Amino acid sequence: MSDITQNRKLLAERVALLGDETVFKVAAEAYAAAAAGQKVYPFHMGNVGFPTPQNIVDAMNKAIRDGKTGYCLPAGVPELREAIAEDVGRARGLTYGPENVAIQPGGKPVIGKFLLALMDPGDEVLYPNPGFPIYSSLIGYLGGVPVPYTYRETATRMEPDLDSLERGLTSRTRLLILNDCQCPTGAEFTVDELERLAGLVREHDLRVLCDEAYFDIRLDGGRSRSLASLPGMQERCVILFTFAKKYAMGGWRLGASIAPVALTDVFIKLNTNMESCTNHFTQYAAAEALTGDQSGAQQILAVLKQRRDVGARLLNATEGVTCLTPDTTFYLYPNVTGAMKNGGFTDYETFRRAVLKETGVSMCTRAHFGDPLAGEDQFYLRLSYSGIESDQIEEGLTRMKAYLESGRREPKH
Amino acid sequence: MSDITQNRKLLAERVALLGDETVFKVAAEAYAAAAAGQKVYPFHMGNVGFPTPQNIVDAMNKAIRDGKTGYCLPAGVPELREAIAEDVGRARGLTYGPENVAIQPGGKPVIGKFLLALMDPGDEVLYPNPGFPIYSSLIGYLGGVPVPYTYRETATRMEPDLDSLERGLTSRTRLLILNDCQCPTGAEFTVDELERLAGLVREHDLRVLCDEAYFDIRLDGGRSRSLASLPGMQERCVILFTFAKKYAMGGWRLGASIAPVALTDVFIKLNTNMESCTNHFTQYAAAEALTGDQSGAQQILAVLKQRRDVGARLLNATEGVTCLTPDTTFYLYPNVTGAMKNGGFTDYETFRRAVLKETGVSMCTRAHFGDPLAGEDQFYLRLSYSGIESDQIEEGLTRMKAYLESGRREPKH
Repeated sequence: MSDITQNRKLLAERVALLGDETVFKVAAEAYAAAAAGQKVYPFHMGNVGFPTPQNIVDAMNKAIRDGKTGYCLPAGVPELREAIAEDVGRARGLTYGPENVAIQPGGKPVIGKFLLALMDPGDEVLYPNPGFPIYSSLIGYLGGVPVPYTYRETATRMEPDLDSLERGLTSRTRLLILNDCQCPTGAEFTVDELERLAGLVREHDLRVLCDEAYFDIRLDGGRSRSLASLPGMQERCVILFTFAKKYAMGGWRLGASIAPVALTDVFIKLNTNMESCTNHFTQYAAAEALTGDQSGAQQILAVLKQRRDVGARLLNATEGVTCLTPDTTFYLYPNVTGAMKNGGFTDYETFRRAVLKETGVSMCTRAHFGDPLAGEDQFYLRLSYSGIESDQIEEGLTRMKAYLESGRREPKH
Repeated sequence: MSDITQNRKLLAERVALLGDETVFKVAAEAYAAAAAGQKVYPFHMGNVGFPTPQNIVDAMNKAIRDGKTGYCLPAGVPELREAIAEDVGRARGLTYGPENVAIQPGGKPVIGKFLLALMDPGDEVLYPNPGFPIYSSLIGYLGGVPVPYTYRETATRMEPDLDSLERGLTSRTRLLILNDCQCPTGAEFTVDELERLAGLVREHDLRVLCDEAYFDIRLDGGRSRSLASLPGMQERCVILFTFAKKYAMGGWRLGASIAPVALTDVFIKLNTNMESCTNHFTQYAAAEALTGDQSGAQQILAVLKQRRDVGARLLNATEGVTCLTPDTTFYLYPNVTGAMKNGGFTDYETFRRAVLKETGVSMCTRAHFGDPLAGEDQFYLRLSYSGIESDQIEEGLTRMKAYLESGRREPKH
């Protein structure tokens, strides 16, 4: 058919503001390299490559046998709302009820619905850069103004640059997106930093999306903290909850918003308008995930920790590379400024493609998580180890080490 | 927690424009009546109350065993895109490829994405009233201007009032929503009407959402027609496809948009931003639904036809009620103007609640499908028979007949 849709005036003007998750392009390149016969080491995707624990699959099949194949309520099934309220509240020292929970087809839909419910055109929204690229895409697409804040590396950790956040605040700032246990850096706010942030939220009367997708991914024990648990914050925070990471359920598309009731009611109305409801029978599987045997999830964490340590060790053994070891997420965020300089590389994409071509290591760079900000002089990669086994991590990063240490090359652009 | 969300300025202003599907309120009343011990006859929901055919469930479990539990591509799995392109094209005499298909978590998400991709603020969008209430809700919420066109009853059929559609066209009209095989009326465009509509679409350079949720629900054989199959229309039409009705998969939340490639690419980008992807492993079940044994779907149609005939017979046997027998959808849309007058009823909600209270028959009225338009002087109910068996249809509508024929009452408001 003729492609009348190329017509300039066909698409809504705002479509031009819609961003993408460029990791999918990296995935396509890796796929093409593998299809061409190259051995590829997949460090690019944040997919958790474990089978979903069997007790969860069994609960789904029971729900189908019980006839849960028709529509359910837009808010989700009561058992799951109850289980999430209990789990999220307990882990954060807060009290939530099912009336605070709206089930969603994944964690990601909470981002769009948070903005649709709370952002008017022209409102400014603070978001992390580097950070999950969908934040700024949807802020701009839905008519707001994305304002970045950033992270910086110290000798011992990646830390939120709260000065940059404070500089971004204006009289038009209305919302803040926080992704503590952060993708891609693995950074966590300290208690002091959370308190400083809570003060800014109160002072500027902000509402906050707490994207807590990695809250339960803790590799060294301990507990994550939520901004929502600080005084006065619960009524200002929307928690994004997902089953994707902890239970290896990325492809199930199950998540939830946890928020004050009046806001939850808006999310439910948005559900009615946009999806009717989330898949009915998988919600019973999700309830089993939360309330049933946790050994599957624990096993996943144990394996992730092992992979992290293998990866960090090899990266730190590579000349020109330093790598922190985050307690959370399943990402490594090595500083490769020295290695890029040694290799004569001055831009991320040339470097990334050279490493893929020469070693088969497929990964993202800092640039896949937002355009580098003015003044940034350090270069970072993001390696996900959720979908690659330890022996392959060892093999791939050993190859990358050899390549990066193979001598100075002419600058490449 | 204190409810700061009641704050007037908290919510985005556009939230006030967000409508609801009021059938859920009818469902809640029916649930309450049943909980209070009343026998309730559920004619209100468009849920298809059949078990999903077993071959479909089996295909899903095979996909889980094959490890399809991680993310898939935002566009959906290739096998399903291919199967939908083939099925939708064949049934409409058109050629589509997988590149025209974007898998969605249900048919409903196509409505929002059609508007998000094509509608700028202030654009006028024609939509059917009576019709699915989400159309006007999302048009207004997303910044457009909903402009209704209507249907009218003749001696033999419900027909689209194309004069009302033509009166609604202005220089700002950009989009049209068409729901042929229509909810709630069961109306279908004739070939002549489709040709007249296609002429208007060409003349006014419109793009059209063809909500074809009931395209495959044909109770008397024959074939549905799609506006997309008329000359010059394929490149202007987005087809909404759903698995909910034909395969009794409402709770699975699986559907697709079928559209020109450039527009499909925008839908895929919207998928990336809003959901990442649709549930991975259920997509293999959907592919089996389309390509595997069709006896389950055929059996559902046979049962629906029997129910329709029982319902229409009893309604037509009721004094003051006349009811057409649509070939499509699973709704009856009886004219109850006489019965309401006989009973002294002048408004829909009083009438509906009296029938529920006195007979247990729970149903929707015309008013659940948009505010009645100026000049409407006929009153209609909408009875869905997709979730109630023939013997219960007989029992419930016999009770309603007795009540409606029980003598003139004082006017009730």
